[in-house]
Amino acid sequence: MADRIGFTLWFTGLSGAGKSTLAEALSARMNALELAHEILDGDIVRTNLSKGLGFSKEDRDTNIRRIGFVANLLTRNGVPVMTAAISPYKAIREECRALIGPDSFVEVHVHAPLEVLIERDTKGLYKKALAGEIKEFTGVSDPYEEPENPDVKVHTHEESVEESLEKIWAHLKERGFVE
Amino acid sequence: MADRIGFTLWFTGLSGAGKSTLAEALSARMNALELAHEILDGDIVRTNLSKGLGFSKEDRDTNIRRIGFVANLLTRNGVPVMTAAISPYKAIREECRALIGPDSFVEVHVHAPLEVLIERDTKGLYKKALAGEIKEFTGVSDPYEEPENPDVKVHTHEESVEESLEKIWAHLKERGFVE
Repeated sequence: MADRIGFTLWFTGLSGAGKSTLAEALSARMNALELAHEILDGDIVRTNLSKGLGFSKEDRDTNIRRIGFVANLLTRNGVPVMTAAISPYKAIREECRALIGPDSFVEVHVHAPLEVLIERDTKGLYKKALAGEIKEFTGVSDPYEEPENPDVKVHTHEESVEESLEKIWAHLKERGFVE
Repeated sequence: MADRIGFTLWFTGLSGAGKSTLAEALSARMNALELAHEILDGDIVRTNLSKGLGFSKEDRDTNIRRIGFVANLLTRNGVPVMTAAISPYKAIREECRALIGPDSFVEVHVHAPLEVLIERDTKGLYKKALAGEIKEFTGVSDPYEEPENPDVKVHTHEESVEESLEKIWAHLKERGFVE
């Protein structure tokens, strides 16, 4: 097993900030290097592990704990995992960091100012949230607790996907997770 | 990755038949050989992935699908997994076999006659189920659909744990999962 190093790269950030885009870009790079890995995207997890859960604090916490549980199973078996759920609450992110172990946990804050995301609104969700059509929408009608000390912070309103990816890759290299 | 062969060993059988006991015995043997693996026990999964789900057919199916989803993530990354939930419904077991892939799926029917289990009743659950204190109890007030063609069938009322384990081990060897 010594030949494989598992880690969990935990993306956190507002809807539309670029978590999934970055996860896919990183995945493509790892594929090119034939590095096996898994992506636990918010939607995949909501479908396969958390159907029936809503967006109350309690349900969000349960959803994130499940992602942490699965990420840990993979990580401790030497599989790199990326999670890409909003994960708005700090305490639960810290709980996942503790479960997986800080040495195997990489928190990446995918940041863009709310105004930019509302302006961008690629999925039209902010418009609906602002109109009150979607309730408990993170950043609009539900809290987002910013990471205080993320391992990496990317600014997707100022950086290209490639630039953000380079910052993440450099950190993974520094930690010995990739070469 | 070629150095690790993943598979899912799917125990199915009535409560008290010996699924967890066999999973633990197999786990001990694999530990002795330094073969990494994971056990997705019914209780562990109910706590970490399926809190809030009950024992209706729908909830049981959801629970088993989640186990299948996680077992698949591990298996396809070269990790041997044992699942030890009752998994009473044939259609969902077959769904998991199809998801994970028949070549990586080992169904083990842990069988003992209901009368023996009622007599044994190590956890006192059958007594409660027969008295109507537990509802939807598999084998008493809820169906158990026996596997028609399990890869291995063990008879825990006639075999010692060691004997059942040998049957399972021989099958894993035959399939090339262990040496």
